[in-house]
Amino acid sequence: MSAAFAHTPEPPYYAVIFTSQRTETDAGYGDMADRMMQLAVDQPGYLGVESARGADGLGITVSYWRTLEDIAAWKAHTEHLEAQRLGHRQWYAAFELRVAKVESARRKAPG
Amino acid sequence: MSAAFAHTPEPPYYAVIFTSQRTETDAGYGDMADRMMQLAVDQPGYLGVESARGADGLGITVSYWRTLEDIAAWKAHTEHLEAQRLGHRQWYAAFELRVAKVESARRKAPG
Repeated sequence: MSAAFAHTPEPPYYAVIFTSQRTETDAGYGDMADRMMQLAVDQPGYLGVESARGADGLGITVSYWRTLEDIAAWKAHTEHLEAQRLGHRQWYAAFELRVAKVESARRKAPG
Repeated sequence: MSAAFAHTPEPPYYAVIFTSQRTETDAGYGDMADRMMQLAVDQPGYLGVESARGADGLGITVSYWRTLEDIAAWKAHTEHLEAQRLGHRQWYAAFELRVAKVESARRKAPG
């Protein structure tokens, strides 16, 4: 399960905290989410992602980035813009997106 | 479901991003998690919390705080120290805790 943790470097770096409530509309959501995960990995400054969604439909996805400029570039990516548009319109009943600068971190390593 | 979103003020404020993998040990975990949520609400500078755990046992809890000092005080709270100790020892196979300064936010409101 440790593959689900992002292996981020020493701070500082940035986090995009995306908290969302899904609608009951599926319409390609899973495929699009997978595609966005694949695309993000290849973006400049991408450091990793962690994601969890409970049975109640509330999900939190945190992606990690080297700089604010990297985040801005990913937000403006053509395919991602289309995903954002569809997300806003049909997949998310509500969401909150916060951009934050990670200042410190500590962990318990698995095993 | 919108009760599951934290109603945070305009940035800046702080986020504690706690990503964890649960063990299979229950031993009072649910009660302790509930108790910590109740306790946190009464701490100075507490702004809210968002939490999701998937069927694979990976969870993300993000708590929001006014200042770093508020976070330090909550970390040092006597009952919370005991919860942290038990968490490290028996409830979490692995975790990563990041402290981050929220610099911007946007949302889609429900309804």
